[in-house]
Amino acid sequence: MYKVKDISLAEQGSRQIEWAELHMQTLMKIRERMSKEKPLLGIKISAVLHVTKETAVLMRTLHNAGAEVYLAGSNPLSTQDDVAAALAQDGINVFAWKGENEKEYYDAIETVAKISPNLVMDDGGDLHALIHDKFYSPNIIGGTEETTTGVVRLKAMEESGVLKYPVIAVNNAFTKYLFDNRFGTGQSAIDGILRATNIMIAGKVVVVSGYGWVGRGIASRMRGMGARVIVTEVSPVRALEAVMEGFEVMPIREASKIGDIFVTTTGNINVISVDDIMQMKDGAILANAGHFNVEIDVEGLKRASKNVRNIRPFTDEYLLPNGKRVYLLADGRLVNLAAAEGHPSEVMDLSFANQALSAEYIVRNRNLKKAVYNVPDEIDNQVAELKLSVMGIKIDQMTQQQKEYSKQWKYGT
Amino acid sequence: MYKVKDISLAEQGSRQIEWAELHMQTLMKIRERMSKEKPLLGIKISAVLHVTKETAVLMRTLHNAGAEVYLAGSNPLSTQDDVAAALAQDGINVFAWKGENEKEYYDAIETVAKISPNLVMDDGGDLHALIHDKFYSPNIIGGTEETTTGVVRLKAMEESGVLKYPVIAVNNAFTKYLFDNRFGTGQSAIDGILRATNIMIAGKVVVVSGYGWVGRGIASRMRGMGARVIVTEVSPVRALEAVMEGFEVMPIREASKIGDIFVTTTGNINVISVDDIMQMKDGAILANAGHFNVEIDVEGLKRASKNVRNIRPFTDEYLLPNGKRVYLLADGRLVNLAAAEGHPSEVMDLSFANQALSAEYIVRNRNLKKAVYNVPDEIDNQVAELKLSVMGIKIDQMTQQQKEYSKQWKYGT
Amino acid sequence: MYKVKDISLAEQGSRQIEWAELHMQTLMKIRERMSKEKPLLGIKISAVLHVTKETAVLMRTLHNAGAEVYLAGSNPLSTQDDVAAALAQDGINVFAWKGENEKEYYDAIETVAKISPNLVMDDGGDLHALIHDKFYSPNIIGGTEETTTGVVRLKAMEESGVLKYPVIAVNNAFTKYLFDNRFGTGQSAIDGILRATNIMIAGKVVVVSGYGWVGRGIASRMRGMGARVIVTEVSPVRALEAVMEGFEVMPIREASKIGDIFVTTTGNINVISVDDIMQMKDGAILANAGHFNVEIDVEGLKRASKNVRNIRPFTDEYLLPNGKRVYLLADGRLVNLAAAEGHPSEVMDLSFANQALSAEYIVRNRNLKKAVYNVPDEIDNQVAELKLSVMGIKIDQMTQQQKEYSKQWKYGT
Amino acid sequence: MYKVKDISLAEQGSRQIEWAELHMQTLMKIRERMSKEKPLLGIKISAVLHVTKETAVLMRTLHNAGAEVYLAGSNPLSTQDDVAAALAQDGINVFAWKGENEKEYYDAIETVAKISPNLVMDDGGDLHALIHDKFYSPNIIGGTEETTTGVVRLKAMEESGVLKYPVIAVNNAFTKYLFDNRFGTGQSAIDGILRATNIMIAGKVVVVSGYGWVGRGIASRMRGMGARVIVTEVSPVRALEAVMEGFEVMPIREASKIGDIFVTTTGNINVISVDDIMQMKDGAILANAGHFNVEIDVEGLKRASKNVRNIRPFTDEYLLPNGKRVYLLADGRLVNLAAAEGHPSEVMDLSFANQALSAEYIVRNRNLKKAVYNVPDEIDNQVAELKLSVMGIKIDQMTQQQKEYSKQWKYGT
Repeated sequence: MYKVKDISLAEQGSRQIEWAELHMQTLMKIRERMSKEKPLLGIKISAVLHVTKETAVLMRTLHNAGAEVYLAGSNPLSTQDDVAAALAQDGINVFAWKGENEKEYYDAIETVAKISPNLVMDDGGDLHALIHDKFYSPNIIGGTEETTTGVVRLKAMEESGVLKYPVIAVNNAFTKYLFDNRFGTGQSAIDGILRATNIMIAGKVVVVSGYGWVGRGIASRMRGMGARVIVTEVSPVRALEAVMEGFEVMPIREASKIGDIFVTTTGNINVISVDDIMQMKDGAILANAGHFNVEIDVEGLKRASKNVRNIRPFTDEYLLPNGKRVYLLADGRLVNLAAAEGHPSEVMDLSFANQALSAEYIVRNRNLKKAVYNVPDEIDNQVAELKLSVMGIKIDQMTQQQKEYSKQWKYGT
Repeated sequence: MYKVKDISLAEQGSRQIEWAELHMQTLMKIRERMSKEKPLLGIKISAVLHVTKETAVLMRTLHNAGAEVYLAGSNPLSTQDDVAAALAQDGINVFAWKGENEKEYYDAIETVAKISPNLVMDDGGDLHALIHDKFYSPNIIGGTEETTTGVVRLKAMEESGVLKYPVIAVNNAFTKYLFDNRFGTGQSAIDGILRATNIMIAGKVVVVSGYGWVGRGIASRMRGMGARVIVTEVSPVRALEAVMEGFEVMPIREASKIGDIFVTTTGNINVISVDDIMQMKDGAILANAGHFNVEIDVEGLKRASKNVRNIRPFTDEYLLPNGKRVYLLADGRLVNLAAAEGHPSEVMDLSFANQALSAEYIVRNRNLKKAVYNVPDEIDNQVAELKLSVMGIKIDQMTQQQKEYSKQWKYGT
Repeated sequence: MYKVKDISLAEQGSRQIEWAELHMQTLMKIRERMSKEKPLLGIKISAVLHVTKETAVLMRTLHNAGAEVYLAGSNPLSTQDDVAAALAQDGINVFAWKGENEKEYYDAIETVAKISPNLVMDDGGDLHALIHDKFYSPNIIGGTEETTTGVVRLKAMEESGVLKYPVIAVNNAFTKYLFDNRFGTGQSAIDGILRATNIMIAGKVVVVSGYGWVGRGIASRMRGMGARVIVTEVSPVRALEAVMEGFEVMPIREASKIGDIFVTTTGNINVISVDDIMQMKDGAILANAGHFNVEIDVEGLKRASKNVRNIRPFTDEYLLPNGKRVYLLADGRLVNLAAAEGHPSEVMDLSFANQALSAEYIVRNRNLKKAVYNVPDEIDNQVAELKLSVMGIKIDQMTQQQKEYSKQWKYGT
Repeated sequence: MYKVKDISLAEQGSRQIEWAELHMQTLMKIRERMSKEKPLLGIKISAVLHVTKETAVLMRTLHNAGAEVYLAGSNPLSTQDDVAAALAQDGINVFAWKGENEKEYYDAIETVAKISPNLVMDDGGDLHALIHDKFYSPNIIGGTEETTTGVVRLKAMEESGVLKYPVIAVNNAFTKYLFDNRFGTGQSAIDGILRATNIMIAGKVVVVSGYGWVGRGIASRMRGMGARVIVTEVSPVRALEAVMEGFEVMPIREASKIGDIFVTTTGNINVISVDDIMQMKDGAILANAGHFNVEIDVEGLKRASKNVRNIRPFTDEYLLPNGKRVYLLADGRLVNLAAAEGHPSEVMDLSFANQALSAEYIVRNRNLKKAVYNVPDEIDNQVAELKLSVMGIKIDQMTQQQKEYSKQWKYGT
C-alpha cells in the first residue's frame, strides 16, 4: 500500500539509498543484527519523517527487523520522490510526494495515524498530537521523537498529565545533538554559503552570532578555512569561552562594521537588525544557520531596501538607502538546508541509529511509565561503539582494577 | 599574629603578589568594589589554602572587604615564604612556611580552626573535617571548598546528615572547572614538559590518554605546537568526539608502539602499564597531567627497570630489560605543578573570583540549609562578565523582544 | 564586431560580471585609475582567455584604459554565453560561445590574431604560437601569458631564438601562483568534493598526495574541517616539512589501506595506481586536484572494474574484482573546476590585476628585449598593496632609519 | 690537549651529551656510517662553535670519522663546562670555558687556528678571518660556515677576490634555515616567554612583528595556544599572506593599543618605538625573537621610564611617565636563548647533519673553486631522508614512468 509520485523512479531512488547506506554503516550494522534477531516482529510502526534517502535507510532497517512500517512525510517539500518510490517497492507503506498541498499533507499523516500502530515515530510532534486527539489505542507501546520542538510539546503534555504512552526523546542523545549541531551544521553551513556565493573564505572576516554547539562548529570550521572569525554572544560565560579559544568577541553593532560574512546561530529573533545591516560594508553577505528564519530581520530589510534582485540561486541583493548592497542567502532560512543538502548521511547515521535502538528498547521494556525519556546511556554508548567499530577504530576497556578505582574514591597527594 | 619563615622576605613577596594582581584583574575588580562596600565587615575567616601569590591576592581582597583572615597552608611544601611574609605584613594572620613537618602542618591548621570563625574556606576538606570534629561553633555561617576531593568528602557528610553548615562547592563553577582544566592545564602541561626536557614538539607523536577537559586541552595545544596527536579513551562517546575533531584514536597498547611523548589525564590508575611501556620506542617520554601519580605504573616501572638515573631536573631515565630507555617526568606526579609553575595567575583569577563572591553570598544569605551548593549561576555569570570587562571586551545584551522570544516557544518552519 | 551565442543574454551576463566585480576590488581600483589615465589609449589587444565573468572584469578594465580589445575563448567549453553577450554589448570584440567545434574554435582565435595587435594576451600559448607562425607584425610591443604551460612553450621559443617580442609570465607573480594554488585550490577542491558527494569530512581519513602549494592548501583546509590528514610525497624535504606541520606521512601503498578520501596534487602520472586502489576500503573516494587527469590511473581502473555506474553528478562507482566499490569524482579531472566553480573571483582578482598592470608595463617600457620576463617585483608589491587597501588593511612603512639599517649589515651580539 | 674549567665535570657532561644524542638521531646515523668508513681519516679540523651538548654530538661524530679535532667556543658565555670536560676526556682538543675574558677568548681561537688544519669550521666568521690574516696554509682544503653573519663576511671576501679556500654555507640548506627558524624559534620563543612570565596565552592578544619564517612560526604556534594573533609587516606581499592565513594585520601603532604580548621577529631596528610603547595597555609584555637586541627601542624605553625594577628572572618592569607599566623580557635580547634553552636538540640535529656531510663533501671534492657554496641539494635531501628514516617514516619513490613524465613536458586537457 503506497501513494507516491512515480513508482518508476524506484531504481534511481534505490541508487540514492545505497549511497546513503554506504555512509550510514552504524545503522547498517544494527540492521544486520536486527535482520537476524527480528526484534520488531509483529510490530506496526506509524512514522512521520522527512522522506529522504537517509530516512529510507532507517525504514529498511525497521522493515528488516520485522516491523510493518507506515510512513508519511514531515514536510510537504522535503520528500525525495525517487526515494519514496524505492521504499514503496521495498514493501514500505509510504504516503508522500514532493509538493503535497496542505490537505494532502494532513491526509497522509492521518493515513499512517489510523493503522492502529504499536510504535509512533515522529519528527515535530504532529503525529503524536493527532494520535492523542483522534487515534489513540491501547495497542500503542510507545514512541520516539526526533526534534527539540516535538520534545517540548510532549513534555508539556506530560506535565499536563495527558501523555498516553512513553516517548523517547532521540534528540537528547549525546551522539545525536552534539555531533549533529557541531560537526553536521559546522560543515554544511559552509557548504551552503560556498554553493550560494562561490566566494573565497580565506582572508574574510566572518561574524558568527551565537557560540552554542552550532556556533562553535561554524566558528571552528571557518577558522579552518582561513577566515578571521568574530563571535557575538549574550552569555558572558560562552563569550569568555570563545575568547579563550582565540576568537574575537564584540557586540554585533561593532562587528557589523567589519564583517564580510555574517552567520546567525542563536535560536533567537532579530539577532541582526536593520540598524546593524545599515552599518555593514558594501557587499556584506548574510546567512542564517539557526533553526528559524527570524534571526536576521528579513522583513525589516525588505521594507528598508530600495531594490531587491536575485543574483545567483539563493543569493539576493538588497540595495540599501545608503547606497550599499548586502546579499541575503536563502531568504534567511537555514542556509545548509536551502543552499546545500543539509546534513551529510554520516550525521543522520548516528541520529537514526538512536531511533532504531530506541524503538527496540521500547518494545523490550513494555512497562515504561507514560513519560518523556532521554535516550538511555547504554544506547548512546552503543551507538558510539558501533560507529567506532565501523570506522575500524578500537578503544580501551577499563580493567577490573580501574573499575574499582573509579568507584572508590582515593585520597592521595 | 603570624608564623612565617622570614618576615624580611615581605618586600620580595609583595613584588610577586603585584605580578599576580596584574594578571588577576577580575578579582581586583571585586576587591575594588568590596573595599568600598565592606561586605565582610566583622566576619572572621578560617582559610586553609596553598599559600601562593595568587592566594595572597584573594586574602588581600577578603581583608579589604572587612574580614579578619586566618590562613594556613593546605600542603607542607606549597608555601611561598616570601608571599607568606608579605601577607603577614599586610595584617593577614598567616601560619605557614615551606617544609613544615607533619605536626607543624596540623598545628597550623588547628591554629586557624580554633579562632571561632564565621566562614570556613578550605582546599581539600581537612579544615572542614577538623572543625566538624573539634571546633564547631554556631558562629559559623557557612563555608567554601575549592577541590573535587573536598566536595566529595562534604557530600558524604551531607548524605550522612552530619554536615553542620552550608558549603559552596567553588570547584563546580563553570568559570572554574572548565577554564582551569582545559585552558590552564592544557598550557601548563606543555610548559612542564618543555622545561623538563627541552625537546621539540613539532613532528612528534604525542599520545594523550583521556579525552576529558584536561585531555581535550592538552590534545588541542599539542596539535597547535605541531605534534601528531593520538588519543586513547575508554568512553566510546568521548572517543568518537576525538575522532570527529580529527584526532587518531586507538588502544594504549597500539599507541605505545608509536608514541614519542605520553601524557595521562584520565583520573584513573595504571592507564599506562609496564606492559605498555615495554612496547615503547627507545627514548619515549612519560608525563602525567592527572591529579594523582597513579596513572602511570611508576612502581612497576621501577621494579622492572635495570637502572634508573637522573638526566635533567624532573627527567629520570629508566633502562628497561629490553635495552630501551624511557624517560619519566616528575616521578609521575602532575608535570605542570612539578616541572613548571602550575596554573597561570589568570586561571586562579577566575577560581578565586568565585571564592570571593561565594563568601559574600554566604554572608548575605544566612538562611541557607546545611547542604553542599553549586556556585549560583548569577555568580558564575558575574565572574565571566567581570573577566570580559577587565579584558576590555563588550558583549551583546538581549533585547526585551529577545527575552520574550526565548521564553515563549515558537513553532515555525 | 562580435560573434556570441545570444546577445539577448547580455543583461543576465552583466549581473554575473557585477557579482565578480564586487569580489575583484583590486582590479576595480586599477580600472578606476586607468579610466582616468587611459594608459592603453590607441593600443589594440588580441586576447585568448577563458570567457568567464572574471575575465570580463579584466576586459572591461582594458577597454576603459583606452584599449581596443579583441577576445576569443581559450577552451571550447569554458565560455559563459551570457558573459560573452554582455561584453559584446559593452563594445568588446568578442568571438566565443560555449560548445564551439574545433574549426570554430581555431577560427575564433585566428580572428583575434589577425587584427594586427599591439599587445598579445594569452592563456596556454596557442595565440602566441599562431601569431609567430602567421600573423606577426612589428606593431606588436609585447605580450603576457597566464599559464605555466604557455610559459614553458615561450621559454622554449626564447631559447631557440625565435621569440619575436617580450612576454611577461603573469603566472610567476608571487601574488598569482602562491595565492592561487594554496588558497584558491585549497578551498575549491573541498568545495568540489562536497558538491559531488555531500559526505562528512570530520572524522574521515584524507590522503593528500603531493605537498607542493596545492597539497599544502588542501591538507591545511581538510584538517580545518576535522579530517585526519595523511600526506604522501616523493621529496624527502617536503615530506619532512609535512611531518613538522603535524601531518602523518607514509607511502601511498600504506595510505591506500586506511584512507577514506584521496586527493592527488602532484603534477605527475599514476600517483594512485590500480594496485593502490585494490588495497582501498569499500567506499573510498578518489579525486584529483592536479592540472591533468593522469594522476589517478583512470584508464587502468576502468579496465580493472567489473562494473561502472553513475551515482550522483560527478560521482561514478567502480566495482572492483575484489567486490569493493570506489568512487571516482569528475572522471579524475580537476575536481574544483568540474564539480564546483573553479577559483573564486577573489583569486582571479590578484591574477588579473597582474595582467592589467603587466600590459601597462609593456606599453610604458617599449625597449624590452625579446625575452620571457617575470612580473616585476614592483607590480607584485603593488597588487598586494592594492588588495590590502581594498580590504581596508593598513600596514607599516619602513622608516628612513630602518631602510638604512636593512642596507648596511650590522654586527652585534 | 685541552683547556677546560674542570675536567671532573666530564661524567655529568657525558650525560648531557647522551640526552642530546638521543634527540639527534640523524647525526647519529651519519656517525654510525662515518665510524666505519672513516672519511675524515688524517684530516685536521679547526672548529669555532658554541660549546654545547649539541655541538659535542657533532664533535664526537667528526672524531669518530677519523678527524683530529680542535675546538674553541664562538662566544665567551655560551660554553657548557661539563660538556667541554666530557669532550676533552673523549680526546677532542677543546679550549673553552664559560666566562672567558676577551684575551682568553681570542687566545683560544688562535690556539685552534694555528694547528695547520685541513678543514675550517666556523660560526660567525671570526676563525675564517683570523686564518686568512695570519694562519693560512695550503693544507687547507676548505671550510664551512654556520651563520648568516659569517656567510655575508665570506661573500664579501669572495667578491674582493681574497677568499683563499672554498666554503660551504651550511646556513643556506633548506633543512637548516627553514626548520630552524619556523619550527625551532616558533616553539622556543613561546617557551622563553612562559618561563619568564608564567602568563596564560589563551585569550591574550599577541602581536607578532614580522611575517618571515620566524614570525610565521611564532604566529602559528601562538594561535595554537589559544591567542588572538595580530601581525605587523612592511612587505605588502607578506602582509597579504598573513591575512589569507586568517591573521589580523595592522600597523604597529594600532596594534600597540590592543596587544597583551608583543614579539619582534623582523631583523630590523626600532620596530617597536617608545611612541608605540606609550600607547600600550598597562601590563603589556615585550619580547624579541629576532637576532639582535635592537628591534625594541630598549635604550629609548630606559630613558623614558620613571622607574625600572626586576620582577622575575628575565622580566623587568618599566614604569612609564603615563603611569602604566610594561614588562620587557630578557632586556630585549633573544627571548628563546635568554629565558629558555634556545633551539631543541632536534633542530641542531638537522643543522649539524648538514655540517658533517658538508665537511665530508669538501674532503671528497678537493677541486672546488675558492668560492662560497650553498649546501648541495643532494646533501639537503640526504639530511631530510635520514631524519625521516630515524623517525621511522617511509615515503614514496618516483617510478621510472614518473621520472620520465616529470622530465618531458606533457600537454593535456
